[in-house]
Amino acid sequence: MGLGGGWDAKPVSRANIAQANDCVNTALESGINFFDHADIYTLGKAEQVFGEVLAQRPELRKRIYIQSKCGIRFSDDQGPKRYDLSADWIRESVEGSLRRLNTDYLDVLMLHRPDPLMQAEEIARVFDELRSAGKVHYFGVSNMHHHQIAYLQQALDAPLVANQIEASLLKQDWIDEGVYAGNSDGQDINFNAGTLEYCRREHMQLQSWGSLAQGLYSGRAVSDKSEAVIRTSVLVAKLAAAYNVSPEAIVLAWLIRHPANIQPVIGSTDCGRIAGASQAGNITLSREHWYALYESAKGMELP
Amino acid sequence: MGLGGGWDAKPVSRANIAQANDCVNTALESGINFFDHADIYTLGKAEQVFGEVLAQRPELRKRIYIQSKCGIRFSDDQGPKRYDLSADWIRESVEGSLRRLNTDYLDVLMLHRPDPLMQAEEIARVFDELRSAGKVHYFGVSNMHHHQIAYLQQALDAPLVANQIEASLLKQDWIDEGVYAGNSDGQDINFNAGTLEYCRREHMQLQSWGSLAQGLYSGRAVSDKSEAVIRTSVLVAKLAAAYNVSPEAIVLAWLIRHPANIQPVIGSTDCGRIAGASQAGNITLSREHWYALYESAKGMELP
Amino acid sequence: MGLGGGWDAKPVSRANIAQANDCVNTALESGINFFDHADIYTLGKAEQVFGEVLAQRPELRKRIYIQSKCGIRFSDDQGPKRYDLSADWIRESVEGSLRRLNTDYLDVLMLHRPDPLMQAEEIARVFDELRSAGKVHYFGVSNMHHHQIAYLQQALDAPLVANQIEASLLKQDWIDEGVYAGNSDGQDINFNAGTLEYCRREHMQLQSWGSLAQGLYSGRAVSDKSEAVIRTSVLVAKLAAAYNVSPEAIVLAWLIRHPANIQPVIGSTDCGRIAGASQAGNITLSREHWYALYESAKGMELP
Repeated sequence: MGLGGGWDAKPVSRANIAQANDCVNTALESGINFFDHADIYTLGKAEQVFGEVLAQRPELRKRIYIQSKCGIRFSDDQGPKRYDLSADWIRESVEGSLRRLNTDYLDVLMLHRPDPLMQAEEIARVFDELRSAGKVHYFGVSNMHHHQIAYLQQALDAPLVANQIEASLLKQDWIDEGVYAGNSDGQDINFNAGTLEYCRREHMQLQSWGSLAQGLYSGRAVSDKSEAVIRTSVLVAKLAAAYNVSPEAIVLAWLIRHPANIQPVIGSTDCGRIAGASQAGNITLSREHWYALYESAKGMELP
Repeated sequence: MGLGGGWDAKPVSRANIAQANDCVNTALESGINFFDHADIYTLGKAEQVFGEVLAQRPELRKRIYIQSKCGIRFSDDQGPKRYDLSADWIRESVEGSLRRLNTDYLDVLMLHRPDPLMQAEEIARVFDELRSAGKVHYFGVSNMHHHQIAYLQQALDAPLVANQIEASLLKQDWIDEGVYAGNSDGQDINFNAGTLEYCRREHMQLQSWGSLAQGLYSGRAVSDKSEAVIRTSVLVAKLAAAYNVSPEAIVLAWLIRHPANIQPVIGSTDCGRIAGASQAGNITLSREHWYALYESAKGMELP
Repeated sequence: MGLGGGWDAKPVSRANIAQANDCVNTALESGINFFDHADIYTLGKAEQVFGEVLAQRPELRKRIYIQSKCGIRFSDDQGPKRYDLSADWIRESVEGSLRRLNTDYLDVLMLHRPDPLMQAEEIARVFDELRSAGKVHYFGVSNMHHHQIAYLQQALDAPLVANQIEASLLKQDWIDEGVYAGNSDGQDINFNAGTLEYCRREHMQLQSWGSLAQGLYSGRAVSDKSEAVIRTSVLVAKLAAAYNVSPEAIVLAWLIRHPANIQPVIGSTDCGRIAGASQAGNITLSREHWYALYESAKGMELP
């Protein structure tokens, strides 16, 4: 959720809250009841405006799932931008999220990025504490590979339920690492082989961020972009017409078609895009269309 | 097997069949009884001419092993070049191979490339069906890393027997990934660490494609090639004389010397090269010669 | 230990031995009692001068730990630079190290680099022989990833006790592979994901070589270096003053702060640097300072 205005110090406005209400309404009407947050989104304001919505309509809380994330800290007088998965910071971050969101609990708390200094046992203790206090029901991770996840998991009492990775028709590394296994053309791919398989085997929900590829294939002006982008946005429009859905739905349907069962996170705060994107669940791309989109966006034939 | 003429629509000719007969005879006389096919090689004609040989000499079938592959589909009116490991396509491909090859069974069927949309359970069912019907005796994969293989294997009743990867004195990534572990000079290597070890541990036969490096070190004109290629072809010739075998045998002996027990696939349809290559089994390269070839072809010293 | 003068054929001098005595004294006075060797360091002279020290002061042997390494062979009349983990060469190398070091046993023997031709069973036999004879107490590896280690380990009777990798504030791949998991900016990183986790899980001691980054951040002239190097050497000096230790201690404290419990190998033969470096154990960098050093040396913000 990119709610709350910009990543700046401006206070939350009435307009921000109205927009949040609209987004939530559109989402619920579209069958979306899972909301993705992070302590840092628009510097806390995304959670804050969402909290205003919940304050106005407390009956909503039980009908929805709220996920937030902790662990990224921006440059401040103590240090540069950094990751912090110490027990103290996880605890402090969750308290802040709960306060801003006007809620007693998070359905899911994610560790936003892997902190090289993280200690599984320390994290296990604070997870335990947060779960016992009823403040967090489930835990997950983001931007981690399976070795990091397994390292954390061995110390935890309950299974990590989700891993949120960057994945879209534009950011294809998660597919390419497998397709280009051992291939000279694959040397610039950066996605850890084995992570998809681990998450599937362990029944961790894969979530994608950047799912809509910044709107690149669904309406953004692309005349100054690469041939591949231009051609793909035309193909997306054509398929949208053929499947009778929005272009956004085609872009997400491409993610959903993968057997790893990906749950796309929609970053947009535009009601039209949210409603359009929600149509992705109504269709199943044919295998041929899936490959046509994949190769068109890649801009080259498969090996 | 690159039999059957070109990758084009020209029908199989009498000359193609004569060549296939010659190749098979040379192979058998050289102690080679394992023949590697794929549904797509020369657009089906490689299997077709081989099938003509079998039709003329049906007694051959029991003396040889036939391996074919499925899963690559070329651009057609349904879609672009793509991989297809759906049950329907695997079944259809095998039926086509059996028909073209004039045989009742394949000894080994390989999944030619990893299909991102593949589902292990679906593949398990069609493998079961093909084995029960006696149409395929064993199954393997090609161009896959160990995470993909393990994902498939967990759903299968019988062990996958082989993995065919690109490996040669020219294409060294399979060796380099280990030698350059953690080394800055290794950033352009693309071979999945752990795949060789997995195959060895699970007793999967490693096979190599591109084994002869397109003849680069064994007789092709190389005056316009890199210093490393020129120097290596001279070294190969020198070692061929010293070991009293063909240059092709030296190039393959380099692969065979590796303890992972690689079975090189010979793509050539030239009788002389086939006979020459078969001499690789008669020699064992010394450790020093193995490294001399490795570093000469690499064109730089080891770390 | 870079003792023994240059990597050349000059014989060991009285000055070399005096320097070795000084280094050993400084180390012991600084609380360092673990000495890292290799059969090849300064072409054997590093072990030789150390052996002279032991000959003069035999009572030292029981107070210290000696580690050496085998497996790298330089270009000679038999072949080019190569790795050799054959039983014959391991045995011959250890005998040479013991003779040069004037000792009956090595505390730890490391396989210096992964040899593509190595065979776990052969290595297991010679390890067994060396341990039974009392010539080597423990075994480890260097520059290997966890798949190679696991391949060796499955054949061995006793656990491999250590893995020595290149790691420093300058050579950050071992940290970056985790931080940039799945990130486009991470495509040039070369460190095997899972190796740190494997070593931690299996209680293998991680050791670092190149730990002091060739002195780049602790006193070397850097005016012609990158902005990142210049800025980092200023930061190191500032932190050295703040923590009241030497710049070398800050550079090593950065390694030690990582929860993988890294034991830095100090390559320097300068008494001042050795004493300075030993102060690293007296401090614990704050999380903020750890990240400040990491990002300063990287020269860019984290993702």
